[in-house]
Amino acid sequence: MAAWTDYLDRNQPGFEAELLDFVAIASISALPDHDQDVKQAAIWVQDKLRQIGMKNCRLLETGGHPAVYADWCHAPNRPTILIYGHFDVQPADPLELWNHPPFEPVIENDCIVGRGASDDKGNMLIPIIAIQSLLATEDKLPVNVKCLFEGQEEIGSPQMAELIRNKRKLLACDMVLNADSVQWQPEQPALILGLRGLVGLQVDLCSAAGDVHSGTFGGTFLNPIHALAKLISSLHNPDGSVAVAGFYDHVQPIAEPEKGFLRQIPFDENRYRENLGLKDLWGEAEYGPLQRAWYRPCLDVNGIWGGFRKEGLKTIIPAQAHAKISCRLVPNQDPGQIRLMLRKHLEANCPHQVKMTITEFGTTALPYLVGHDHPGNLAAARVLTEIYNRPPLYIRMGFSVPVCGWFLKYLGAHTIGFGFGLDDECIHAPNEFFRLSSFRKGQKAWCLMLKEMADWQPGG
Amino acid sequence: MAAWTDYLDRNQPGFEAELLDFVAIASISALPDHDQDVKQAAIWVQDKLRQIGMKNCRLLETGGHPAVYADWCHAPNRPTILIYGHFDVQPADPLELWNHPPFEPVIENDCIVGRGASDDKGNMLIPIIAIQSLLATEDKLPVNVKCLFEGQEEIGSPQMAELIRNKRKLLACDMVLNADSVQWQPEQPALILGLRGLVGLQVDLCSAAGDVHSGTFGGTFLNPIHALAKLISSLHNPDGSVAVAGFYDHVQPIAEPEKGFLRQIPFDENRYRENLGLKDLWGEAEYGPLQRAWYRPCLDVNGIWGGFRKEGLKTIIPAQAHAKISCRLVPNQDPGQIRLMLRKHLEANCPHQVKMTITEFGTTALPYLVGHDHPGNLAAARVLTEIYNRPPLYIRMGFSVPVCGWFLKYLGAHTIGFGFGLDDECIHAPNEFFRLSSFRKGQKAWCLMLKEMADWQPGG
Repeated sequence: MAAWTDYLDRNQPGFEAELLDFVAIASISALPDHDQDVKQAAIWVQDKLRQIGMKNCRLLETGGHPAVYADWCHAPNRPTILIYGHFDVQPADPLELWNHPPFEPVIENDCIVGRGASDDKGNMLIPIIAIQSLLATEDKLPVNVKCLFEGQEEIGSPQMAELIRNKRKLLACDMVLNADSVQWQPEQPALILGLRGLVGLQVDLCSAAGDVHSGTFGGTFLNPIHALAKLISSLHNPDGSVAVAGFYDHVQPIAEPEKGFLRQIPFDENRYRENLGLKDLWGEAEYGPLQRAWYRPCLDVNGIWGGFRKEGLKTIIPAQAHAKISCRLVPNQDPGQIRLMLRKHLEANCPHQVKMTITEFGTTALPYLVGHDHPGNLAAARVLTEIYNRPPLYIRMGFSVPVCGWFLKYLGAHTIGFGFGLDDECIHAPNEFFRLSSFRKGQKAWCLMLKEMADWQPGG
Repeated sequence: MAAWTDYLDRNQPGFEAELLDFVAIASISALPDHDQDVKQAAIWVQDKLRQIGMKNCRLLETGGHPAVYADWCHAPNRPTILIYGHFDVQPADPLELWNHPPFEPVIENDCIVGRGASDDKGNMLIPIIAIQSLLATEDKLPVNVKCLFEGQEEIGSPQMAELIRNKRKLLACDMVLNADSVQWQPEQPALILGLRGLVGLQVDLCSAAGDVHSGTFGGTFLNPIHALAKLISSLHNPDGSVAVAGFYDHVQPIAEPEKGFLRQIPFDENRYRENLGLKDLWGEAEYGPLQRAWYRPCLDVNGIWGGFRKEGLKTIIPAQAHAKISCRLVPNQDPGQIRLMLRKHLEANCPHQVKMTITEFGTTALPYLVGHDHPGNLAAARVLTEIYNRPPLYIRMGFSVPVCGWFLKYLGAHTIGFGFGLDDECIHAPNEFFRLSSFRKGQKAWCLMLKEMADWQPGG
């Protein structure tokens, strides 16, 4: 048995105690009252990195929640790996649905329960522990390592693109390993080959100067809610496809080898539907649900409001009606181009009787794609196969991880998902938990992964 | 000069002081914290009626806010007139827009300023003062009079239909005079020949069991906001008419003499549009704005909501989407029938992928119509012509006064609008006021009106 595996085994109780400490910090990035907690979590991470022997440990100011940087670059002629994760967490409400206070984590049934346990504190502590065990037992790392842990992922990383661009020399690397990632099932590993992009905007329609009595004025002018309903209806075709002109122009067809990978996915459509509590799944008819979620773009109204919403009836025609609209994008859709098409569609379809204001949201994400044969994925596949005793599935994800696009754009480095979360772990919801079996498995996997990368010769 | 006019002139300062007292009671029926204030206003009215010599003064329990009853029935062989008004008021918020505290009324520029000054405390005190002046100077009234003042008009009179039905013997009368009514302009009287009816319901659409991540699931099932937008869009035709099958089946065409009355209305469409702050008026093309507001039914979504509405973007597909829908009805549309048609339309047009729940609102109103040649209107026209030195316009109103339908249904009596509010008096809004010139003019008009009715022989 290698010294580092022995080290991991011996120190597991201490790692669990540290994870409990880390999860106990209420580092909720969305709530200004918790700004100091986010900072405290950053300092906790910085201190931990310093203790295990990482160099140049420091906070990187962003103008918002700070990030933490550290490196160990004493492996000449070896590749440089940037490790990414985040130490901020989602708000914990509704508090009454938690079985334990969200920031007083407990260990139950070999799981740690608490806000952020899986997303992402448990997962981001794993590579730190892997580094600790290698440095402690081998006095060096097999590759050069840089760490970038951020404190604003749960609010859309508003200042991270700027930070990555400004610090591209500091962060320069050959590849990124993302600790904020998932596996398919407890016994089935997976590698993520693609993420959807994101672009969104808000539409505000305005008719009269104020709310008016719908008895006195009903029928004399266009109710902005009616106008908004018509506008939203115009965004989709009856077959479920998006009706915005040009929307699909640059969408890539599903091709081999991913077509083959998709066939490997054990997918039970009925169970998927039942888990969502739905009567029916629905969407572009020529694609199955997973194809629609992973390989096809979509457009959703995420919120709508206007007029009276309390108990009973208040007979007004509201002055305004509002909707928040976002699109998930796939390669090679460009967020800026799609936004422009959407604006044009809204302007062309908005009834002329109302005034429309469009506000673009700053948070956008490029769709992201990485080959199954990227050296990082090849190495990860070897490691996961060894750890799980079965090869990984190759999947995509429908959501967006904006940093992946920025790492590629500003550092020229692909990101490989290498996290151990599972989709039943109640992330963003009450009673979030993380399996300690994943915590242990992940530590071993990360050690192996860093060793696997040692012989890679980027550009070689 | 008749003794009663002299009495009115001499006592005006006292009447104004009483109105200030009355308006100072914060009888907001919508806010449970003010239940005792509503009751206090009821007692104030009861005491006032007793002081002026009305008989059988008492509160009528309703299960909610009480009503006040009184009568004076010592005019054998004369008709019985039921006088209606309300002593509850709208909430006063936003308080910061008031120049004086809403329940510390002041007199400025011959106007009383305060919540409820015009709607309806000033207007309902007028007939009480008229009765007082006649009883004080003539020791009798020219007709039998019953008073019914309510305390729940501003919340839709939820228990008044039941009360009127249960007390139909007590309230039996030949005609109702409604003190909660308006004139056209300060110098131009008007009589109201019609009011629209009302029926409404709430639609709740549900898809998934909870809000889900629109990245993970976007495109795999029907977003309930999209379904609701489609459903709402289906309710109107492109020409602005309501698309519910059968909706117009029983609508009466605009006929003489009202066609002629309509031509008499001095109506400036541009000013109407500008007052509303609108780019355009819009609706059924073959009807003008006043025709649409008074003679045509309509359907409005009064409120819509679903998903995320705070600052920024939260990429969810909400579990639910909701809308409150109401229709204004004209003769001879039946609220129950229209509601059934609307339900059928919603059921037929709701996308099958979502679950729909329809909840009917209890508040309904029958459309109401009274002839310009009803003896009450003929008498009112004579009185108004004498007071204003010009004949009244004959108008309708787009809003609903539910009691009118119930008085007709349960008492067999038509209601004649005989109030002196004006539409610039900020009712339901900050800085509500009532012209003391209207207050004085109204007192005289009510004395004359009661005298005019003395010779009427109902059914004769």
